[in-house]
Amino acid sequence: MVEGEGSRKSSVAEARDLLAANRDFYRIVVERDIRAMGTLWARSAPVACIHPGWPPLVGRERVLQSWNEILRSAQAPSIRCHEEYPLVFGGFGLVICLEVVNGALLAATNSFIREDGAWRLVNHQASPVAAAIAEQLEEALTPPRGRLN
Amino acid sequence: MVEGEGSRKSSVAEARDLLAANRDFYRIVVERDIRAMGTLWARSAPVACIHPGWPPLVGRERVLQSWNEILRSAQAPSIRCHEEYPLVFGGFGLVICLEVVNGALLAATNSFIREDGAWRLVNHQASPVAAAIAEQLEEALTPPRGRLN
Repeated sequence: MVEGEGSRKSSVAEARDLLAANRDFYRIVVERDIRAMGTLWARSAPVACIHPGWPPLVGRERVLQSWNEILRSAQAPSIRCHEEYPLVFGGFGLVICLEVVNGALLAATNSFIREDGAWRLVNHQASPVAAAIAEQLEEALTPPRGRLN
Repeated sequence: MVEGEGSRKSSVAEARDLLAANRDFYRIVVERDIRAMGTLWARSAPVACIHPGWPPLVGRERVLQSWNEILRSAQAPSIRCHEEYPLVFGGFGLVICLEVVNGALLAATNSFIREDGAWRLVNHQASPVAAAIAEQLEEALTPPRGRLN
């Protein structure tokens, strides 16, 4: 199928909306907004989550319970997202990005599905970037280049 | 839409095929089969990859180049996959799993899209599980319970 102007615009709009949902995710963590976190994760689709250093959590209840514990903790993380790269596959989307969490650099994949017209999270995985590589990358990530502060 | 018996059977078949594609991925790494790795990754859809400790790689050329280097290396990893959990979203699928790589426990997400009738990889991310948690999990993963050897 030859992609027409309309569908190209639509893809751009989908990617823009996907990046907005990804920014919402990090804003929700920064604001420790447990209710909004519950809304952002998909309800009808299966979900999973791999926090840094954790084994996989599968299922909405376990995933949201983990976020509740993290966001309620006195050590709730300071987090910023950088270098977001959206990959859209119809009603499914991935955002590949870097996170600075409590000063450490992580690489993350956030997976979204279109549910009731909105992008909803179905998976989040974040993993540490090796120190030697992180040092080089962090120089390029210092504000004002950071997209979230 | 109420899901009928036919579509439920179809979902089971999709999950089975998805798990088979995930097993293919680990077999390809074990066999250092660079040609098969090129076939397994999607061609028409965008792709990305986050190796343990690496920053994100985006694009088929960079992702496959990284795999070529890993599989050609004298230190090509010993890898086994355990506890695979498939999540199917129509023509998109995730497999959440544990990996034992050179004796270390990792958590992984492999993301697939249906392309030309086959499940093809669009993203792979693997991240280390913290030592204290890994010790507990590894006891349960020792053969014969391991699904891949």
